[in-house]
Amino acid sequence: SCGQGSAGVVNGLIFRQLFDKESSTFTYILGDELSREAVIIDPVDTLVERDLSFIGELGLELKFGLNTHAHADHVTGTSLIRNRLPPGSFKSVISASSGAKADVKVKQGSKIHFGNRFLQVRLTPGHTAGCACFVLDDDSRVFTGDTLLVRGCGRTDFQEGDSSTLYKSVHEQLFTLPDQCSVFPAHDYRGRTSSSIREEKRFNPRLGGGKTEKDFVAIMKELKLSTPKLIDVAVPKNMACGV
Amino acid sequence: SCGQGSAGVVNGLIFRQLFDKESSTFTYILGDELSREAVIIDPVDTLVERDLSFIGELGLELKFGLNTHAHADHVTGTSLIRNRLPPGSFKSVISASSGAKADVKVKQGSKIHFGNRFLQVRLTPGHTAGCACFVLDDDSRVFTGDTLLVRGCGRTDFQEGDSSTLYKSVHEQLFTLPDQCSVFPAHDYRGRTSSSIREEKRFNPRLGGGKTEKDFVAIMKELKLSTPKLIDVAVPKNMACGV
Ligand SMILES: [Fe+2]
Ligand SMILES: [Fe+2]
Repeated sequence: SCGQGSAGVVNGLIFRQLFDKESSTFTYILGDELSREAVIIDPVDTLVERDLSFIGELGLELKFGLNTHAHADHVTGTSLIRNRLPPGSFKSVISASSGAKADVKVKQGSKIHFGNRFLQVRLTPGHTAGCACFVLDDDSRVFTGDTLLVRGCGRTDFQEGDSSTLYKSVHEQLFTLPDQCSVFPAHDYRGRTSSSIREEKRFNPRLGGGKTEKDFVAIMKELKLSTPKLIDVAVPKNMACGV
Repeated sequence: SCGQGSAGVVNGLIFRQLFDKESSTFTYILGDELSREAVIIDPVDTLVERDLSFIGELGLELKFGLNTHAHADHVTGTSLIRNRLPPGSFKSVISASSGAKADVKVKQGSKIHFGNRFLQVRLTPGHTAGCACFVLDDDSRVFTGDTLLVRGCGRTDFQEGDSSTLYKSVHEQLFTLPDQCSVFPAHDYRGRTSSSIREEKRFNPRLGGGKTEKDFVAIMKELKLSTPKLIDVAVPKNMACGV
């Protein structure tokens, strides 16, 4: 029968979006309805209790904790979760290109399986050199980290950021996904919870609507951004997200 | 073909959840994919520009602005939206039992149509005397306002609130919905974006897990809550939400 999107279950996928008001970070839980195996994407250290209580109540067994990148604005919850669960049952995940420590280091095309479902890795350097996006098996959803935000994108002025590289990543790895693919970012600062590839291709003021790489580089150069408050604490900790 | 939940479109329904960090309020946009007619639930006055820009980019035509009740913590956006759209094209909606002014005053069982879809009203007094929940035509989603929150509920100590009445409303009007029905509340203060009837029946610490009406009345009596900062401004304004 057709998935109805009810109770966060669409076609056998259990799906929950969670939010950290402090850092405006989104955390995602994806579970396979049948096997109850699940993954969590970008958990925040201060909210691990909330997330694990939800996972328990949903009757899910957490297999992997995925980090889209080494964040500069909050500390990942994957090491705390790892310490809370039976040894060996839960693995932290980050891209090999991030240079960070984790149980599983993924590359372009790597698959992270939970039950009969999987997420596939697309490497999208630009915001950081090690950024990765995770595409759901049926191309219905992509978790874009700070690479592509709702009508925006992550900054490119530190952590080995590079505007030309980000532009190429978005156009080659994300804008090639189906138009109707839902975009779930790592952050939003204006209360928007999701977007779609179609919308971002048309309406992203930096990367869509025919903006060229040159336009994008110029736009990013003009941004005057302050340094994230937590960067000196968060980045070193996040480089050791699984230990 | 089966809805995939992609781009917020499930079985022809366009769906977006939006958040106001200031008051922790959720706003919802629902659209009929074919006709492009849409409704907005509990818009916040300060975020009307964001919401209308989203609606424009999604190619939707806004027909109704629904208020679950006269809020005490923020000012509804329905009158601002009404002033921004062509005269007569958009109507504000609230329950007749709220005593508030609006273009459309709904009762138990009233339907609000957008294209081929509709929301149906269930009256749920208790948090306020005029609270209403809106159930999607296929029972896949319910918008619960402050009547039922994720693992919680609205307060019952002012605005004609009454604990016994709230308990009955939840058990008779909401817990009778299908288990898999998704619950979308008006607020969450811990970054949780949705729940399900099944979960709230089992895990709501006040109303679920076998808690009796007597238990609930005692729990609510014990809460020591401060008065919402905006109540003296918001309630009078919200009592005139459509004018
Ligand atoms: Fe980042
Ligand atoms: Fe309220």
